Amino acid sequence: MAIALIIPDRKLDDLQQRLQQALPDTPIEIWPQLSDPAKITFAVLWKQPPAVVAQLPALRALQSFGAGVDGILADSTLPRLPLARIVDPALTAAMLQYLSGIESYYRLRLDFFRDNQQQHLWQPRSPRKLKTLCVLGLGELGAATARYFQQQGYTVNGWSRTPKDVPSVHCFAGTVQLAPALAEADLVICLLPLTPQTENLLNANVFAMMQPGAIFINVARGAIVDDQALIAALDSGQLQAACLDVFRQEPLPAEHVFWSHPAILITPHTSAVTRVDTVVAQIAENYRRSHQGLPLLNQVDLNQGY
Amino acid sequence: MAIALIIPDRKLDDLQQRLQQALPDTPIEIWPQLSDPAKITFAVLWKQPPAVVAQLPALRALQSFGAGVDGILADSTLPRLPLARIVDPALTAAMLQYLSGIESYYRLRLDFFRDNQQQHLWQPRSPRKLKTLCVLGLGELGAATARYFQQQGYTVNGWSRTPKDVPSVHCFAGTVQLAPALAEADLVICLLPLTPQTENLLNANVFAMMQPGAIFINVARGAIVDDQALIAALDSGQLQAACLDVFRQEPLPAEHVFWSHPAILITPHTSAVTRVDTVVAQIAENYRRSHQGLPLLNQVDLNQGY
Repeated sequence: MAIALIIPDRKLDDLQQRLQQALPDTPIEIWPQLSDPAKITFAVLWKQPPAVVAQLPALRALQSFGAGVDGILADSTLPRLPLARIVDPALTAAMLQYLSGIESYYRLRLDFFRDNQQQHLWQPRSPRKLKTLCVLGLGELGAATARYFQQQGYTVNGWSRTPKDVPSVHCFAGTVQLAPALAEADLVICLLPLTPQTENLLNANVFAMMQPGAIFINVARGAIVDDQALIAALDSGQLQAACLDVFRQEPLPAEHVFWSHPAILITPHTSAVTRVDTVVAQIAENYRRSHQGLPLLNQVDLNQGY
Repeated sequence: MAIALIIPDRKLDDLQQRLQQALPDTPIEIWPQLSDPAKITFAVLWKQPPAVVAQLPALRALQSFGAGVDGILADSTLPRLPLARIVDPALTAAMLQYLSGIESYYRLRLDFFRDNQQQHLWQPRSPRKLKTLCVLGLGELGAATARYFQQQGYTVNGWSRTPKDVPSVHCFAGTVQLAPALAEADLVICLLPLTPQTENLLNANVFAMMQPGAIFINVARGAIVDDQALIAALDSGQLQAACLDVFRQEPLPAEHVFWSHPAILITPHTSAVTRVDTVVAQIAENYRRSHQGLPLLNQVDLNQGY
């Protein structure tokens, strides 16, 4: 019985040490240095290379190191085992702090004033009047975001693929209700999971459903957005601005057109980063549960993909 | 009995109309079109030209159109009459929204990410750990700012020229306590009034009292800051960044070095703009009080200058 951390390109000493403190009798090994693959019963995964997990015959359960599982499920050889993701209150708090800051950035017109500064231009403007907001995706983070902005005085629409109910939020569901959910929003925040159903969901048709001059924020996954359609919507003025924290390919390639578009603000996937100190307890608990045959905390529905 | 609006370079139709509704029997005149200067008993002022007020012999009281009175008192021929300023809850709310947005801007490192974007550079960083904040000036706006950030979890120091007491805020007073008030602050927010005592108060000595790497925000008056000392503190790294909303000369001249300094964010005096719809009632009430011989609402202490 041992745990494997299969998380390439990341320093894992701290995670390993803390997990070891939480589970003193369990070997915690960092892939690819596994002493005996046949003894690994639990794997913590993030962007694992294809076919690696399939080579661990004794696995009982899989744990995503983050809130998303799309990078894990992309591996077609992945064994069909219980898979859990992190639902971390600290992650939700970090996401709300990020979104609140980005909302202020646009409300205070810091985009406009920074552009003016480069031209030495003094053009006072009162804050943008942002009143209606649409959250795409009503999972943990989406529902928390909808509630937060509703409390800040926004009229909030929420949209999800399957019907959801969030108090004080106008909830829409399914493809046919996407247009009314988006129609009046000054701000559109994408917090959808990346699944085969949501890949390229935000295309030219969907940007056309938005209110002219809407501001779009993507903190979910880059591949949900059709990059060329987004550029076209910004160029035509259909969208006023976009803040992108996630990209189809990360790091965003230096030659990508997003970098130099004047209406795009880029942050390098920093909206909500999993914090080691708050997720260790959740991983340790799921390891114990996998050995007791109990359902995992925050277990993913493999048919839905989230 | 009539009111004069002496506010150059600003459209005043809306203010005039609303004041007229609040005071239907009182002529509301816009300077310089005054039908009879001898009948003006109350003047609403903002950046009035020198010696204009002194030519109104029947004046009983003066009303600033904003929170500050330094521009009004700069006129050495100003008659020594009761002078009131606007203390507007909407103004305070707008200031807190501005400061909260600027705090988020720096906490989320949007300054760093925007610079990186220009160079197509992907460098993820977690948010800045900002914990201690110093508010210079503990008047209406300063005290509200100190309370707000204390509620957000900051350790807040407040400094004022004369001793003040703000609950949950460590209050410092007088020149000798400026250094301990500033010493540990990650963020320093200037909300001092501009008086002969505070002009150029923030000079090289005072920037040297700040914690290396502090972030400075000026939303008070430009002339409180020694411009060259600020540039030197940013160039040496003693200050990490500065957000400036106010300037010695406004509009900031196109050739001013502030515009192109990489560590300065400029907003064109938009942090808190007086809103006509919320100040009309306060002006009308002070007009009535001036005719009843009552003290004005928010009357300025002419000896202190605020």
